[in-house]
Amino acid sequence: MLKPFSDKVANLAPSAIREILKFTADPEVISFAAGNPAPEAFPVDTIAKISADIFREEPINALQYSVTEGYPKLRAWLEQDLRAKKLFKDGDMVVVTSGAQQAIEVTAKILCNEGDVILCENPSFIGSLNAFRSYGVKLIGVPMDEDGMLPDELENILKANPTTKFIYTIPNFQNPTGQTTTLERRKAVLALAKKYGVYVLEDNPYGALRFAGEDVTCYKELDDSKNVIYAGTFSKVLAPGIRVGYLCADAELVSKAVVGMQTSTVHTNIWAQMLAYRFVTTVNFNEHIKGLQEIYRLKYNRMKDALKAQLPDFIKLSEPQGGLFIWATLPEKYDMNAFCVEAVKRKVAVVPGNAFNADEAEISHSFRLNYSTPTNEQIDKGCEILGKAATDLLK
Amino acid sequence: MLKPFSDKVANLAPSAIREILKFTADPEVISFAAGNPAPEAFPVDTIAKISADIFREEPINALQYSVTEGYPKLRAWLEQDLRAKKLFKDGDMVVVTSGAQQAIEVTAKILCNEGDVILCENPSFIGSLNAFRSYGVKLIGVPMDEDGMLPDELENILKANPTTKFIYTIPNFQNPTGQTTTLERRKAVLALAKKYGVYVLEDNPYGALRFAGEDVTCYKELDDSKNVIYAGTFSKVLAPGIRVGYLCADAELVSKAVVGMQTSTVHTNIWAQMLAYRFVTTVNFNEHIKGLQEIYRLKYNRMKDALKAQLPDFIKLSEPQGGLFIWATLPEKYDMNAFCVEAVKRKVAVVPGNAFNADEAEISHSFRLNYSTPTNEQIDKGCEILGKAATDLLK
Repeated sequence: MLKPFSDKVANLAPSAIREILKFTADPEVISFAAGNPAPEAFPVDTIAKISADIFREEPINALQYSVTEGYPKLRAWLEQDLRAKKLFKDGDMVVVTSGAQQAIEVTAKILCNEGDVILCENPSFIGSLNAFRSYGVKLIGVPMDEDGMLPDELENILKANPTTKFIYTIPNFQNPTGQTTTLERRKAVLALAKKYGVYVLEDNPYGALRFAGEDVTCYKELDDSKNVIYAGTFSKVLAPGIRVGYLCADAELVSKAVVGMQTSTVHTNIWAQMLAYRFVTTVNFNEHIKGLQEIYRLKYNRMKDALKAQLPDFIKLSEPQGGLFIWATLPEKYDMNAFCVEAVKRKVAVVPGNAFNADEAEISHSFRLNYSTPTNEQIDKGCEILGKAATDLLK
Repeated sequence: MLKPFSDKVANLAPSAIREILKFTADPEVISFAAGNPAPEAFPVDTIAKISADIFREEPINALQYSVTEGYPKLRAWLEQDLRAKKLFKDGDMVVVTSGAQQAIEVTAKILCNEGDVILCENPSFIGSLNAFRSYGVKLIGVPMDEDGMLPDELENILKANPTTKFIYTIPNFQNPTGQTTTLERRKAVLALAKKYGVYVLEDNPYGALRFAGEDVTCYKELDDSKNVIYAGTFSKVLAPGIRVGYLCADAELVSKAVVGMQTSTVHTNIWAQMLAYRFVTTVNFNEHIKGLQEIYRLKYNRMKDALKAQLPDFIKLSEPQGGLFIWATLPEKYDMNAFCVEAVKRKVAVVPGNAFNADEAEISHSFRLNYSTPTNEQIDKGCEILGKAATDLLK
């Protein structure tokens, strides 16, 4: 190297999940480590037909440069859809992003100077945490109980950190814990955000994938003073490989995000945006989502039942009402990392919980299990192997 | 707003070209202001067929999450292709990016702290300049003559700015000037980069679109000490709307860029990468490129002939040997901006040259003309209007 890397990225490492996923290149390894939507949930035939329609009807539009804000028809549909859900308020603007990840990354870029503080649930989604780290911010994890972030702890942290720019949250079926923040807790967090003059960045990739319980009002709907920035995506309701997400917030903020994206990706793949638009306006989108919920309900129940049958009772399992993940927690006397290593030796990959901590060095006793990617047979066999590993190792 | 924007983006404005392009929403306006490839150059039928093949043969691969580095088959093809062109050296790595723009943006992110210096040709491509600005770097334009950047001026700037991280250059058919840096000048610039321990970021979107003269050796080929970072793209040889570019450099640097992209787009739209791979391996890619060169040769000649017939002799025109742009320069006594405003009033849009300066406040007497996007009829009519405007205004 001629010159060192910039300070903000010098210590940025590939996500720990990626290291685990290397083991899963071995075809004998059953992976509960991914976060991929169930492939059987992809509406392949409809997508193939729509793509053919696009190239027959308007090929140049699908291939030429487009505008950074996104495909106008898709933006109009999103605005209407988000308005109907009370997530789009007067004065808001919605733009298309290259996945929700870009929405999250550009939000950090436009709001944070190096050394500023971002608060997150502890644990939280490593992709977002690394996006924040890549701008040299100080990341502070807020302790949680089963209802979400603890308001007293949150307030203490806000008091102690006046350069906090926003609170990052995945309120529904959180990655990695699978848990949903209660309405009461959302109101408390939002009240604190207002009191201390910080944004809430609400990341809601899994919200549509609810297979039990009742929807909880979004932060974005609860907000009446432009404190909430909302990131959504088509990754879990259409397909992640197309990289189509969106950002909805106050227009001034979103306009600055557009300038940021203009300098990085110019615009999101336009064929993919046209595909998403034609998909949501061609099929019965609500029925499509109900179908997805049924797929995830069955997969979750399969894994839950298998885990309950195979794992010792002292391993505590979260009970998600949607999404892709179960969070398993060992009693403190056991070494979680040793268990994960033993599991992968026996050809089952899970993700060690410390990967999701704001401070990765902090000890975790939990690990993340994914039920959307493996087949039913893999779920059964993998849980059996985990059960035996637990019986042999945890005595 | 609750909080101000980050310092690095606070003053970042949408590109001035976008403001000009607003006029071009008027269907009566003939736009010579864009930078779009010729739509007739898109191999629509082949793309439609390949897309159908993908969804018939491997739909899940085209829709599921993929790896940040890019589609392995496309990366392998790129490595082979770049190696054959002597652009890929031992120890290098090539990854797929969401357009060359992302390659350029992430290079600035991983190399530059706020306040560091990036040097660029003056004038240069505004999209890249804004990407650099978005990281709070100090941008210094290096004066050019017809052979490229002036080595003495470059050395003086390098001496005076020890925090310079890289020299950004578009060596072939530069945007906006259309000019090509000579081999001798490339060698001089590279020698200075080595002497002062800075990188050269070589942006080569137009290199394949040569319609006159002989290829000039790339910086990347000339480099024997990992000083050159190479950005390429399928935007001008396949289609820009798919957003597929690539970054080729020393593996350590590219690995850090991958971590950066993992936090922003996760990966480039995978269908688009599969499309690009199948395209280059299905068609005779060299023949395809020869066809593009012929399209651009005809379009360039059409505009050159029309301009020479219509414009007064005192407006100097660059003579590109490829690419998309002609650079027109007025004598210093005239007001270039007033001429551009008059042109757009008469329904012809061109881009004022100061938009491309490292310091936008610096006066320019030039404007940029694009011949790839307008039809032949638009070229003829637009040049006639420009000629009348010049005759009326510039006396």
